[in-house]
Amino acid sequence: MVSPKAAPEKAKIVKVEPLDSKDAKWTKLEKITYTDPNGKERPWECASRPTRPKSSDVDAVAIIAILEKPDGPEIVLQKQFRPPTGGVCIEVPAGLVDPNESIETTALRELKEETGYIGKVISKSPTIFNDPGFCSTNLSLVVTSIDLGDERNQNPTPELEEGEFIETFSVPIKDFDDQLRKLDSQGYKIDSRVQNIAEGIKIAQKFKL
Amino acid sequence: MVSPKAAPEKAKIVKVEPLDSKDAKWTKLEKITYTDPNGKERPWECASRPTRPKSSDVDAVAIIAILEKPDGPEIVLQKQFRPPTGGVCIEVPAGLVDPNESIETTALRELKEETGYIGKVISKSPTIFNDPGFCSTNLSLVVTSIDLGDERNQNPTPELEEGEFIETFSVPIKDFDDQLRKLDSQGYKIDSRVQNIAEGIKIAQKFKL
Repeated sequence: MVSPKAAPEKAKIVKVEPLDSKDAKWTKLEKITYTDPNGKERPWECASRPTRPKSSDVDAVAIIAILEKPDGPEIVLQKQFRPPTGGVCIEVPAGLVDPNESIETTALRELKEETGYIGKVISKSPTIFNDPGFCSTNLSLVVTSIDLGDERNQNPTPELEEGEFIETFSVPIKDFDDQLRKLDSQGYKIDSRVQNIAEGIKIAQKFKL
Repeated sequence: MVSPKAAPEKAKIVKVEPLDSKDAKWTKLEKITYTDPNGKERPWECASRPTRPKSSDVDAVAIIAILEKPDGPEIVLQKQFRPPTGGVCIEVPAGLVDPNESIETTALRELKEETGYIGKVISKSPTIFNDPGFCSTNLSLVVTSIDLGDERNQNPTPELEEGEFIETFSVPIKDFDDQLRKLDSQGYKIDSRVQNIAEGIKIAQKFKL
């Protein structure tokens, strides 16, 4: 289940330059003025995405896609070169919400496009914020299950856009944290959402929930 | 364990204005040029923090602080007005790394300052990235346990900075996701790291890991 042509490790940073706000298309900076609980006015700086559709309260979805394999469940992960991290990142499938699209539709569309799998929505998180002190970007996390008995999931073929080089793989849930530490030691960059799923699993295991 | 004076719900947004890069102190925009796996040059826009100390590869730490109570473990959470989200956010204790400070030292310092608790470090995650397609901000997630038998933890007193209005509370781990959905329905904004811990716990429970 690996697209051999993706090879995200071959990507490289050439240069990093300051970007002026007026030349930015995908990011913007904002100055927020707020009153604190005592009524005192204070400033706050914020980065945001100017691409959120008017029809939506969220920028994006992230997808926890679970493969129920005979020898135990696995989570679908991706390797993708992410210029802001300077390396290849380990993430769950994700994507920006299109205008007039529901969270569930975005999730199943992005899952199909990025991994080739047809999934079924199990649950949807509240709106969650990636880095609430720094930026306003947010998402909903959608848990999906992938029926490996479904004929359409026998030979999943991603439909990547030009410029997307995503390698899809999956790892067992039972030792998810160990798998992430191994990927980290190999030089991959771990997305915080992925690591936090692992932390939750470890906590549940430790306290026998 | 609630600081009655914090009242983060009383904070309010007054106005939001565009911010020019040259006037930004806490955020910056960058234009990255990279070569994709086929060798083709491509541009990428990125937001970043100019505050990361030279001594550190990470911007910040986040702290999963576990209270081992007689009737079951609880996780320490915080309510804090976060201007980028436009509301009061549910987060774990966290803070920026100071120059020449180790991850563990930052974690125990911030835990003490923000909650009053003396903790013990149990584990430290790899470096993780908050929103790797959008910004370069990153952190390490530190799991700590708080010994409620320790005399110093009997009457925890936060040492908040001027302008910080943080309310600390804790919720049982066993129904963590339900607790977050309740907070969401009350209008609080959920940090993605907190939600993802809940997703990990739910997955472990579902698959009886």
